[in-house]
Amino acid sequence: MSMFIIPVRSPGLAHISYIFGHGGKAGVVDPRRDCQIYQDIARAHGAVITHIFETHRNEDICSGGAALARRTGAVCCHGRQLPFAFGQAVQEGDRFRFGSLEAKVLETPGHTFESISVALYDHSAGAAGASTAVAVFTGDCLFIGDVGRTDFFPGQERETATNIYESIHNKLLPLGDQTIVYPAHGAGSVCGASLSEREFSTIGHERRCNTVLQLPDKEAFIQFKMAEIHHKPQYFSKMEEYNLLGSAPDLPTLPQPAPVSAKTFMDKKSAGMQVVDIRSPEAFGGAHVPGSYCFPLDMLSAYCGYFLTFDKEIGLVIDELAQADEAVAQLYRMGYDNVTCFLSGGLPAWETAGFTYESLPSVHVDELVRRIDANEDFTLLDVRAEGEWANGLLPGATPIYLGDLERKLTTLPTDRPVTCFCGSGRRAVIAASLLLRAHIGPVENCLGSMAACMALGCRLENA
Amino acid sequence: MSMFIIPVRSPGLAHISYIFGHGGKAGVVDPRRDCQIYQDIARAHGAVITHIFETHRNEDICSGGAALARRTGAVCCHGRQLPFAFGQAVQEGDRFRFGSLEAKVLETPGHTFESISVALYDHSAGAAGASTAVAVFTGDCLFIGDVGRTDFFPGQERETATNIYESIHNKLLPLGDQTIVYPAHGAGSVCGASLSEREFSTIGHERRCNTVLQLPDKEAFIQFKMAEIHHKPQYFSKMEEYNLLGSAPDLPTLPQPAPVSAKTFMDKKSAGMQVVDIRSPEAFGGAHVPGSYCFPLDMLSAYCGYFLTFDKEIGLVIDELAQADEAVAQLYRMGYDNVTCFLSGGLPAWETAGFTYESLPSVHVDELVRRIDANEDFTLLDVRAEGEWANGLLPGATPIYLGDLERKLTTLPTDRPVTCFCGSGRRAVIAASLLLRAHIGPVENCLGSMAACMALGCRLENA
Amino acid sequence: MSMFIIPVRSPGLAHISYIFGHGGKAGVVDPRRDCQIYQDIARAHGAVITHIFETHRNEDICSGGAALARRTGAVCCHGRQLPFAFGQAVQEGDRFRFGSLEAKVLETPGHTFESISVALYDHSAGAAGASTAVAVFTGDCLFIGDVGRTDFFPGQERETATNIYESIHNKLLPLGDQTIVYPAHGAGSVCGASLSEREFSTIGHERRCNTVLQLPDKEAFIQFKMAEIHHKPQYFSKMEEYNLLGSAPDLPTLPQPAPVSAKTFMDKKSAGMQVVDIRSPEAFGGAHVPGSYCFPLDMLSAYCGYFLTFDKEIGLVIDELAQADEAVAQLYRMGYDNVTCFLSGGLPAWETAGFTYESLPSVHVDELVRRIDANEDFTLLDVRAEGEWANGLLPGATPIYLGDLERKLTTLPTDRPVTCFCGSGRRAVIAASLLLRAHIGPVENCLGSMAACMALGCRLENA
Amino acid sequence: MSMFIIPVRSPGLAHISYIFGHGGKAGVVDPRRDCQIYQDIARAHGAVITHIFETHRNEDICSGGAALARRTGAVCCHGRQLPFAFGQAVQEGDRFRFGSLEAKVLETPGHTFESISVALYDHSAGAAGASTAVAVFTGDCLFIGDVGRTDFFPGQERETATNIYESIHNKLLPLGDQTIVYPAHGAGSVCGASLSEREFSTIGHERRCNTVLQLPDKEAFIQFKMAEIHHKPQYFSKMEEYNLLGSAPDLPTLPQPAPVSAKTFMDKKSAGMQVVDIRSPEAFGGAHVPGSYCFPLDMLSAYCGYFLTFDKEIGLVIDELAQADEAVAQLYRMGYDNVTCFLSGGLPAWETAGFTYESLPSVHVDELVRRIDANEDFTLLDVRAEGEWANGLLPGATPIYLGDLERKLTTLPTDRPVTCFCGSGRRAVIAASLLLRAHIGPVENCLGSMAACMALGCRLENA
Repeated sequence: MSMFIIPVRSPGLAHISYIFGHGGKAGVVDPRRDCQIYQDIARAHGAVITHIFETHRNEDICSGGAALARRTGAVCCHGRQLPFAFGQAVQEGDRFRFGSLEAKVLETPGHTFESISVALYDHSAGAAGASTAVAVFTGDCLFIGDVGRTDFFPGQERETATNIYESIHNKLLPLGDQTIVYPAHGAGSVCGASLSEREFSTIGHERRCNTVLQLPDKEAFIQFKMAEIHHKPQYFSKMEEYNLLGSAPDLPTLPQPAPVSAKTFMDKKSAGMQVVDIRSPEAFGGAHVPGSYCFPLDMLSAYCGYFLTFDKEIGLVIDELAQADEAVAQLYRMGYDNVTCFLSGGLPAWETAGFTYESLPSVHVDELVRRIDANEDFTLLDVRAEGEWANGLLPGATPIYLGDLERKLTTLPTDRPVTCFCGSGRRAVIAASLLLRAHIGPVENCLGSMAACMALGCRLENA
Repeated sequence: MSMFIIPVRSPGLAHISYIFGHGGKAGVVDPRRDCQIYQDIARAHGAVITHIFETHRNEDICSGGAALARRTGAVCCHGRQLPFAFGQAVQEGDRFRFGSLEAKVLETPGHTFESISVALYDHSAGAAGASTAVAVFTGDCLFIGDVGRTDFFPGQERETATNIYESIHNKLLPLGDQTIVYPAHGAGSVCGASLSEREFSTIGHERRCNTVLQLPDKEAFIQFKMAEIHHKPQYFSKMEEYNLLGSAPDLPTLPQPAPVSAKTFMDKKSAGMQVVDIRSPEAFGGAHVPGSYCFPLDMLSAYCGYFLTFDKEIGLVIDELAQADEAVAQLYRMGYDNVTCFLSGGLPAWETAGFTYESLPSVHVDELVRRIDANEDFTLLDVRAEGEWANGLLPGATPIYLGDLERKLTTLPTDRPVTCFCGSGRRAVIAASLLLRAHIGPVENCLGSMAACMALGCRLENA
Repeated sequence: MSMFIIPVRSPGLAHISYIFGHGGKAGVVDPRRDCQIYQDIARAHGAVITHIFETHRNEDICSGGAALARRTGAVCCHGRQLPFAFGQAVQEGDRFRFGSLEAKVLETPGHTFESISVALYDHSAGAAGASTAVAVFTGDCLFIGDVGRTDFFPGQERETATNIYESIHNKLLPLGDQTIVYPAHGAGSVCGASLSEREFSTIGHERRCNTVLQLPDKEAFIQFKMAEIHHKPQYFSKMEEYNLLGSAPDLPTLPQPAPVSAKTFMDKKSAGMQVVDIRSPEAFGGAHVPGSYCFPLDMLSAYCGYFLTFDKEIGLVIDELAQADEAVAQLYRMGYDNVTCFLSGGLPAWETAGFTYESLPSVHVDELVRRIDANEDFTLLDVRAEGEWANGLLPGATPIYLGDLERKLTTLPTDRPVTCFCGSGRRAVIAASLLLRAHIGPVENCLGSMAACMALGCRLENA
Repeated sequence: MSMFIIPVRSPGLAHISYIFGHGGKAGVVDPRRDCQIYQDIARAHGAVITHIFETHRNEDICSGGAALARRTGAVCCHGRQLPFAFGQAVQEGDRFRFGSLEAKVLETPGHTFESISVALYDHSAGAAGASTAVAVFTGDCLFIGDVGRTDFFPGQERETATNIYESIHNKLLPLGDQTIVYPAHGAGSVCGASLSEREFSTIGHERRCNTVLQLPDKEAFIQFKMAEIHHKPQYFSKMEEYNLLGSAPDLPTLPQPAPVSAKTFMDKKSAGMQVVDIRSPEAFGGAHVPGSYCFPLDMLSAYCGYFLTFDKEIGLVIDELAQADEAVAQLYRMGYDNVTCFLSGGLPAWETAGFTYESLPSVHVDELVRRIDANEDFTLLDVRAEGEWANGLLPGATPIYLGDLERKLTTLPTDRPVTCFCGSGRRAVIAASLLLRAHIGPVENCLGSMAACMALGCRLENA
């Protein structure tokens, strides 16, 4: 059986876990909660999983480390700077063999204090192979094109920024340019600021091309990190608890929400169910269940954690069953086990049952520009993140980051229409659904948003 | 290897073909155009296809009989009352063996003059088995819950209705109650009027429960058939030609439309490309490419044949790639080989490129009723079929069958808004897209339509 | 959503379960133990499972009724003549609705005393539909081409034979010829004697063609049934217990045996592990692990239950992983949860590790005939069933049914070679593996066996 | 859409092709003949294939470059040192853009004179990214753990060895340690001598760990390469022709051999059909069709090209259909379009039809050692390659490389039994089938072979 390193991606969170192995043994790095997949891959390679490495206590994703260890008997290894309630603490230099492959622990604090990286060596390549790292799992320390965020410990920002600088320069770069980099996140993750959409790189390529590593010196790096603005959705605290204690329920299969009739769906909604519409912004615009959250499926993981609670059931509005399965998987990976049902037959079932539905009008940027130029009275609510404002705002825009919107709703003027705006319209529609839920409005969504402004050359102002 | 009868369904057209076999030989009944699937099934059963039976020259679906015969060397058998340009004519009583199974030809004219049915006998069940039909492929002669339409030969309606009556009573019913019925269409087909949504039945069950067979006598049956109203989309004539000559191009795989940018899509549209939006009515309502046809995917086969031409390319607007594949398959089965591209990135790519998009407002039946009661000025365009009007119309509705709408557009008043209406809103949205293309309007779509009226108990009038 | 009846087959046991439904509700008939599949099918049809029907307490297969009821909240319905520890007793005439479909219970004792059948009616076909059965689930009462065995209650054979006769004639045939028959077993099952390899039939076709139903009168039927010889593998008693109590462990997924090295496999074997080789007879003949049972995969379910115990672990020898999965599924359905591992790398791993392997020579029937004609000294062990002997034996053959072989081993002469023989060589190889385990021999296997004799026209004798 | 580099592997030949892309455009490197897969991957990534790079005229695999270019309209790029009959010549420094990725041509002769490599740069990583290679497709120039063979041009061995040295040192290593290496072959390929079973590496890791690159100087490298012994199966010449001219037939789908009865299979065999048994060595040992070639499926591509001809049809003996599909794919990639059928029902169908079958006895190394020690008369035919003999032979072994065996058959003594021997028994069984076909024997196969000798510590001699 040949050597293998196989990434297992969790879209939405842009999380990447890995399984690697040789000679009948396999190791898993940062397993996700629905962890059967690692056992399947291991079996297909004739291997048993003997070790699990958690590069750090994840905040954004519910780890499957504890569950996978229970299921397989593998040892779950953590950094020693945090008292995990399960598994085993490892430290700098600990080594583990998987056939000809050897995994070696590097302590690389910064993103968190207990963060580790795991370097791989191939002993089948002789003495040189034994001392030349062929790959390294960098967790949330070093990403492709970025480094991990260091804002999780208020008051210790300088210390964590210093740590990650030293971890990279004293531990990772010394592995050598030839080392392939396997980070825990790809483009779109909230665990970094501007990850590359390329998923293959090496220490040498990052050393030369990663923009954060090009800052002139250590102090500049620290200042840069301390100036970054990151957000922390409320569900993070649940992840931190689950991942420290290994206490997330381990369901044998993903939850399977039941198909329910429009009538039942309506009754559950009246009883407090959170209605989550994962269809496209256009479909939500055309018609939706009043009071529902709109999270287009590809936006779900990134934003639902700011708004959804763990204690009330969740009912989905979907176009087709496969979307429900994908949504349930994403939510399960964020600790939400409370998706109990979906509207059987989709929105047409709701419509044909005679229930009231709501629309959300769209507005083109040409019309926005016209209104701005005409000085019309309306709120242009730009829900992009702070880092995006820097590239310009439409004149008169009110910038409120989407994650902050729910608690800032009261700051919006109530005497005029609100047009939601973002990079493309996919986050704006989430914002619009929040406004509709709060009965603020009339509300519109600018499909196209800033991307259309750029394409059309609209005039922008500085933030 | 055991005996097998496996239905192969073509959704949209509600067409059902079959492959059956035993002892290393297989027969295919009414193969669809993308015919690799029959070879795959045959191989999986260790069989080679030796005979193909076309129960009649199909009008609504492009047959794969000629192609499958060429690919496999099998004989393609037709009824002898039509001079097919390929294959072999068979007649009453012709028999073909497939291991222990024997297929016997019955001439069952009515739907068309050359229509045949094929009865199956199992010789492994001894002498009784040799004389007791176990199943019969009834083509478009006898459906579950209905019989085939007999309106294809203008001026000969009495003759065809008489024929189908006699075929059923003199050929099919005599096979015996025990005979399982495998028709060429299921619920939703345009080849009958009111097929059951049950797909399993027997001669005996149809004899007792099929409503058309309960008519008091032959003359009542004939009158009933002659009074039926059916429609004939323009693409039928292409099917008739292809299926008579066996001349439909036989592509090795389904056409694979290329992903193209919003800019290219726009340019092609300007150059005459037919834009077909197969997303949901809600999504089309939210935003769509101006000038596009809206055919929700499950409506595509039933209605696109009235409107789309074979000579201009077709570009799709989709939510995800699998929809394009399904649409391409459906269109290929209707003879459309001209799907050349789809809008890469979907409608968001169009929006973010800054191109203009259009919306289609929805209106709830409560609002319709209010307007009707208030005597407001608007056209309530009901595009359901004649048979549905009988169950009632909303007061003041203008009934025009969807298939006729394009050529009756000029009959609509142009000085008032038009609200499209059907059974649920899925056909109404097609009508709305036609109106938008013709710049008639303003246009609305009543999501929910008659189903919502029924659920809410709205007052109806007779047609 | 349309009506559906979907068979779910368990190869090996030739067991057929069914899920049917309409209008968002589904019923399951005779679910197998690995029952996730029914939930998957139900969801794909937008339905929830509300009722489970167990036509009888199965003996040959571990039912999933109790597990599926626990998982779904559905009611598990049984005949009232046996005190099941779970679910609900039903009786003649009980009716259950699934949309337009109605299931009606028929008490049809014979195979067992509590056996029921379930007839289906389609109310969408009007009043006639409400009184005309469209299908019937016949359990082990009526098969296609056969009827259920009636030998399970020693001393009550006449009563059970009488019962099944009356159930068929008074309950099933009166449903009418038009009723489609869905039995619980297909060809190859040990629950009947000579089931047809056809899986589609009707009451009418069975009435006319089922050979058992052609016997001249009731008494002839009873005599026929009482004269039948059936066998009862030892694992049946475990099934009876599990199925009465609903006590079979409900694993979330099928057991996943671990890949183990040749060394570990050897050690486990030495410690008592049952080695089960599921490769082909030819591969077993070429080389195998000494002391292993040979059960070619398609023979596994039919014969392993005579020999394998529940209390010692089972290790598999396979060619590829998919075979292990299939074997594990088959064994799980027979109550064997003790498949813990498979030989990683297959037999080549054993060979290259230097361990001793064994061969099993093959002998062609030409050579057998030569030996018989030459009056050579050898035991020709024919392990077919009694019913097959009737068609003739090779001269001098010693007939011992395979299921009885282990306890009759001591009756074999030990001073001469033994050639195992059956219908084709696939059961003979099982017998050969038993002889090799018992160190009786030398042993040969006649690949081709009686089938080759028939093809070559060998002279046979009467049993 | 994110960047992607996706390997497409052809097992057996251990060939690796690649498709990469970004921004709606994709490039393919060294496509295999069954090339639909690249179009499927491109579509799934919303990309169209614009360029194909053939790193060299392949000898061991039939390229799909010409076919894929015809199907997609992409340009097929070759090195300019060979006059390809299609596509376009490229030269050092030519650059092609795929979104942010840029592919740059490097001329890297050695394996062949026109060999090129293709380096990738990511412009989204800024100016540094534009000048820092992130990956390089090395074709058959640089492998992981080895370099390409340089023996294809008799009389020019020094020149080609010098070329490849210079290509590696002057072109590839200067790309920098950080460059990920994507070669055209993995472990098991006949295009190198000792490729690593690791498939991920970088220029830096190879620079330090690739044993061939550790040779002390250029002259040592050249001497090493010139001393290597490689073999050239006869089918290579067909590949060279096909790949130079782009003339390999482009079938729309893989050939689909028909299931045929034992009788038909026998007749075809008598008429000259090449019977290829792809079952396991153990199954072939147990029973096989007389006169068949044995190529265990995982050995098929590596060895059948020495023996099978293109002009006579090929019939397969398989255990299950999926094996036939895999075999047909492998053979198609080697230019064999002549697989017309397989024995339906497998060897059991042959056996039960009464046809004669043959066995191949196995012998354990313990027995071999006993015979050697006892000085018994037998030929121990060791068919491993020259490079393997160096590690030792069993005393008295006759080494003949398997690829040479057919033409050296006459050198074998005919008065004694022959035991075939190799590394594990999987090549020995091929040799045994050749001997059986030639009626040399009696023949045995040593399952376990040298691996078992090593495990058991048998005494070896030097070659």
